[in-house]
Amino acid sequence: MLANKDQEKTELEALGEFGLIEHLTQHFPIRQPSTVKGVGDDAAVLDFKGKQTLVSTDLLIEGVHFDLSYMPLKHLGYKAVMVNLSDIYAMNALATQITVSLAVSNRFPLEALEELYAGIDLACKMYNVDLVGGDTTSSTTGLILSISAIGEAEADAIVYRNGAKANDLLVVSGDLGGSYMGLQVLEREKEVFKVNPNNQPDLEPYSYIVERQLKPEARKDIIGLLKDLEVHPTSMIDISDGLSSEILHLCKQSKVGCNLFEDKIPLDPTVIAACEEFKMDSTLVALSGGEDYELLFTIDQKEFPKIKGNPNLTVVGHMTAENEGAHLISRNNSKIPLTAQGWNSFAKT
Amino acid sequence: MLANKDQEKTELEALGEFGLIEHLTQHFPIRQPSTVKGVGDDAAVLDFKGKQTLVSTDLLIEGVHFDLSYMPLKHLGYKAVMVNLSDIYAMNALATQITVSLAVSNRFPLEALEELYAGIDLACKMYNVDLVGGDTTSSTTGLILSISAIGEAEADAIVYRNGAKANDLLVVSGDLGGSYMGLQVLEREKEVFKVNPNNQPDLEPYSYIVERQLKPEARKDIIGLLKDLEVHPTSMIDISDGLSSEILHLCKQSKVGCNLFEDKIPLDPTVIAACEEFKMDSTLVALSGGEDYELLFTIDQKEFPKIKGNPNLTVVGHMTAENEGAHLISRNNSKIPLTAQGWNSFAKT
Repeated sequence: MLANKDQEKTELEALGEFGLIEHLTQHFPIRQPSTVKGVGDDAAVLDFKGKQTLVSTDLLIEGVHFDLSYMPLKHLGYKAVMVNLSDIYAMNALATQITVSLAVSNRFPLEALEELYAGIDLACKMYNVDLVGGDTTSSTTGLILSISAIGEAEADAIVYRNGAKANDLLVVSGDLGGSYMGLQVLEREKEVFKVNPNNQPDLEPYSYIVERQLKPEARKDIIGLLKDLEVHPTSMIDISDGLSSEILHLCKQSKVGCNLFEDKIPLDPTVIAACEEFKMDSTLVALSGGEDYELLFTIDQKEFPKIKGNPNLTVVGHMTAENEGAHLISRNNSKIPLTAQGWNSFAKT
Repeated sequence: MLANKDQEKTELEALGEFGLIEHLTQHFPIRQPSTVKGVGDDAAVLDFKGKQTLVSTDLLIEGVHFDLSYMPLKHLGYKAVMVNLSDIYAMNALATQITVSLAVSNRFPLEALEELYAGIDLACKMYNVDLVGGDTTSSTTGLILSISAIGEAEADAIVYRNGAKANDLLVVSGDLGGSYMGLQVLEREKEVFKVNPNNQPDLEPYSYIVERQLKPEARKDIIGLLKDLEVHPTSMIDISDGLSSEILHLCKQSKVGCNLFEDKIPLDPTVIAACEEFKMDSTLVALSGGEDYELLFTIDQKEFPKIKGNPNLTVVGHMTAENEGAHLISRNNSKIPLTAQGWNSFAKT
């Protein structure tokens, strides 16, 4: 992908480590009142003025978490930030700062890293977040991105994974399975491209699901919506590994069971169409696909009238006593135990 | 190193991603009152109760930053934490939490990662720091460690890089060049081992410098000492890339020049002896060696009586007007411009 660009390349060596980080981060503005000192000292300095501080971190490795043959670097930068902000929103908090560390091999010219940082910059702008630190170094192979997100919230607003009670309703934002089916489309086009490099894929019919994979949005809007609706979830998590595995996290940490209703799982029509085309079961895709970055949360039944009919939120089940376990109630009313089929990067393929 | 151990190995696949992080972090206690929620949710929750928050991050890559053929994993874990805590102390703040993200290839059995975390655990215990989050994943090659350190300080206690004034004294803690000379000894022994694997190296004469390389200590004690002495530095940085490059950072950000006196640079006798043995110039080693993790700071001349004669602190020079530039005043009184010869991981070797 990079090799075909007929433009001037700047070798990283010419800049060195300090020059590189300065070059990539010098145009990032400070937007948050809590940022006292951003990039450029031994550590960033933040002042949350009595609010609590949230910290989350993720490590993304080329060849494990992303494939640059169909993931443009600008999208990668944007998505890497989303993955981290999503963890902060999943605490019912607002993200305020990020740090970005980067390891790259010499095959990346400076212009490629500028693309990556353009995506990071866009994400910071759209989500009102400051880049306040990081590290750049070389890698022996490929690209490695480590992002930490920092956020703030009043102590009593924070929602943990462990507060769900039996009879609470289980609610999900948006729709599920799109990101995984977008990946299937991109993987297929990559194989087609290998056989016939002149083939121009028509991704138009798949634009929604491809965008879910390449440019997901963290659900900051849902945090605002819950505040406006005066809904305080009893537990919350973001859906990075698939609905099934996230439900099991809530159940385990809250010491409850769960009934999830198959016919309630929100699916976009393009996800259903893609599942038919790829001969995949759409329920399984929603349960195990992952990377949707929607929010999954539980609310007391009394709060139901506040969310009823909201197009952004779907009640997909309810929590039960712990000894009842976690189950999918299928369309034909059979009870199937939920298992963690989320992504395991250590599995041999 | 790992291949020769005649003990039972647990494959990472058997644990999966969630099992692995839980297994590695479950015994870490919470020591800091500011830690509200550590490992186990979408994000850690911290409460600094009005103090300011410090954040620093580093990415360490096998084959670039460390060589497992002579760096035991427990030492690597310890050192990786030190590198990050040092950045927090360099702000005159106290480190309170860390997050640790890890990418490993399948060649590492669980027991190897337990060794790594034993080093991290020891560092947390010695420096009174909580492990509050992280991420584990697979890598296509080698071991990758990303650590973020979080700290706290009263707003008026924090020392930045940009506060040095002309005529301020330049002070360094401890002694310099040991870590780099320790690395030379280890590299030499590795070459000897390649030729004759039965040769048992006698590292005893080099124990101080080898320990400086394999098990450096971040200078938390200096932060306590400065507080006890009621010395408030005007600027501060930690020495990770060599004295010369750190002085240039202070000069650039404070808009001052500097005269550094060669005969004042603190060197341990074993560093001088090793430099003679390896036919290296000890001043150059101190200026460019790096990884000493000592603190370099400036103080107003009025504060000199408070630090005079303290065995932990050495005045090595003084700041000048910006237009005078940064120079080394050599033993024969010639004036040599300081250049950033710190470590550039993008340089081709």
